Amino acid sequence: MQNFIFHNPTKIIFGRGTVPQIGPETAAFGSRALLVYGRESIKKSGLHGQVMNALANAGVAVAEHGGVSSNPVLSHVRAGIAKVREQRLDVIVAVGGGSVIDTAKAIAAGSAADGDVWDFFIGKKFITAALPITTVLTLAAAGSEMNAGMVITNEAADEKFAATSAQLYPKVSILDPELTFTVPPSYTAYGAADAIAHVLEFYMTNTDDDAPVQMDFMEGLIRNVIASCERCLADPCDFGGRAALMWSATLALNGLTGAGLGGTAFPMHMIEHSLSALYNVPHGAGLAVVVPAWLRWRLRQNPARAARLGQQVFGLAPDAEQAVDALRSWFSKIGCPVSLAELNIPEADIPKIAANAHSLARIWRLQDYTPEIIADILALCR
Amino acid sequence: MQNFIFHNPTKIIFGRGTVPQIGPETAAFGSRALLVYGRESIKKSGLHGQVMNALANAGVAVAEHGGVSSNPVLSHVRAGIAKVREQRLDVIVAVGGGSVIDTAKAIAAGSAADGDVWDFFIGKKFITAALPITTVLTLAAAGSEMNAGMVITNEAADEKFAATSAQLYPKVSILDPELTFTVPPSYTAYGAADAIAHVLEFYMTNTDDDAPVQMDFMEGLIRNVIASCERCLADPCDFGGRAALMWSATLALNGLTGAGLGGTAFPMHMIEHSLSALYNVPHGAGLAVVVPAWLRWRLRQNPARAARLGQQVFGLAPDAEQAVDALRSWFSKIGCPVSLAELNIPEADIPKIAANAHSLARIWRLQDYTPEIIADILALCR
Repeated sequence: MQNFIFHNPTKIIFGRGTVPQIGPETAAFGSRALLVYGRESIKKSGLHGQVMNALANAGVAVAEHGGVSSNPVLSHVRAGIAKVREQRLDVIVAVGGGSVIDTAKAIAAGSAADGDVWDFFIGKKFITAALPITTVLTLAAAGSEMNAGMVITNEAADEKFAATSAQLYPKVSILDPELTFTVPPSYTAYGAADAIAHVLEFYMTNTDDDAPVQMDFMEGLIRNVIASCERCLADPCDFGGRAALMWSATLALNGLTGAGLGGTAFPMHMIEHSLSALYNVPHGAGLAVVVPAWLRWRLRQNPARAARLGQQVFGLAPDAEQAVDALRSWFSKIGCPVSLAELNIPEADIPKIAANAHSLARIWRLQDYTPEIIADILALCR
Repeated sequence: MQNFIFHNPTKIIFGRGTVPQIGPETAAFGSRALLVYGRESIKKSGLHGQVMNALANAGVAVAEHGGVSSNPVLSHVRAGIAKVREQRLDVIVAVGGGSVIDTAKAIAAGSAADGDVWDFFIGKKFITAALPITTVLTLAAAGSEMNAGMVITNEAADEKFAATSAQLYPKVSILDPELTFTVPPSYTAYGAADAIAHVLEFYMTNTDDDAPVQMDFMEGLIRNVIASCERCLADPCDFGGRAALMWSATLALNGLTGAGLGGTAFPMHMIEHSLSALYNVPHGAGLAVVVPAWLRWRLRQNPARAARLGQQVFGLAPDAEQAVDALRSWFSKIGCPVSLAELNIPEADIPKIAANAHSLARIWRLQDYTPEIIADILALCR
């Protein structure tokens, strides 16, 4: 096990009927909130009204900032920062999935900074302050509700970049699995693929062969994502299934899986970010394509880890190729795309995608991933 | 899965060479520290000097409060509170295992209160404030380094009671596995028994049969405690083994295992506390006696959970009796006592022990445990 620091101060309020707590929990941090959300669906479902009532009852004034898209964009973040400044808001409330929460984080950091918020994503500046953030989660996937990271797309530059800071941990996140009963099968599956990808980045890229607590924990999380996703697809209103998927996805990227593993990297996300940036594919769908391909490429260097994955997650004999086949088949079975063709991305675009991903490789210190190597991996996405 | 709140703000600094960080990490919370520790061993090992230097270098003045015993006592807590008040200290630094950290917590809470600190343990008052606490851990066992609980013995009344408050989470805990290289085999084993008992209290007493994420996590922790304890006994300086045991024991009682399980209880600890209170046996040794007996008694109502334990931890067929046998044999194999006789406690004392435990049953809301039932369980400690 390698040295690590683990310090996750987010308060999780989990379970049925917990949404009204967003009022007093937010009021503890501010009295003038920017409410960030996505599409109109939270108005139809009544969640928007429930949150507005809770905030009003707690004495929190609200300015609204809806319209977050999947693969949330920089221009919308900047518009949110402008609202915060104009109206002197002091707390950000996110109601939605990872895209909404990441937008809220970017607004929170950008509002507390002098320069342009994109400087944080290109590594030009570090985040040293942010407005407090509270969240109501509506999608089991990204893990942003209990971590310090965010991903935003600069749509003018086709760049989907990430930034991290301890300032970005939400103060409070409310996780009511019932809010995900209406998530359609496709996004339920993409969310599961996202959560599995988060675990696999740590599981596959760390070079510490003596971290048994973490390995066991990660294998359990993947098993639980698989089992709970299948329950949710069979019955979208299976509370236990939705609860297990939601909590697994949160734990998959809250810092515990990677604590003690030493150097880890996010090469699968690096490549997927280019698919999302260039073709606006859902992040989890892009990952379902990239993850098996990256694993297959990885086997050339390190088959042992994938073989262990196959044993512990799928109950297979220790065979790395079989493990990758099993994961790819499972992604396909739950309705995820598993090839570029299924994303309607022509193979002729591979050089363009590789060049885009390579620009992120520099920032993420993944320089070993040359455009040629990235193209090799993309060629396996079939 | 049941509703829960998870909010653990302790910062963990884990790994080799991390002890000097106790200086700046403590200085962030105060400039006049009470240094709480146990026996002279930390002076011989050089740890005491290392901590004193780190605190001095960070500008933290230190008053010392050594002499914490295993099964730490109330009189020593009160003496620590008196020092804090007389010398107007503002932060508590614990260097030791669970007994030392629990003493530090009790001093931290008692120093911030008007009345007597024991009121918190008998449920007469709630803890609403405490001085900040930082810790350097020297024993993998109790989990106190990352939780909100404490256990103190009122030696005048033969009462070993517990108290909990969010105020008691240490601000920072430093976990260097190398500090445990010198822990003797017996206490290494007792620590493992303690950690396993912590997991089993949640695993066995919760009535939620749909908490798969937590069940998987708990089984992984028990497997890791077993495997890592064996490594430590085979080679006390096996860093990976010490690290896995330390991190497993911390995770076993930091709130994650029980989050979402709904009502759980600590009946095994309740009974063990009477053994410690009356006979001053090491807590982990007492648990190694009580846990298999309680499990055996429990099978009459709920054999399924123990059967699952046997499958997932010991690779057995689903048979509850076999599972208990396997755990008891393992405790015995690593050098723990597994009967009252091995603790030199006569069976004739069972009524006295049962009466003592029953006084705690009222406070812990375990009224179903009549003196007769507790005596039945104790009769199985053979």
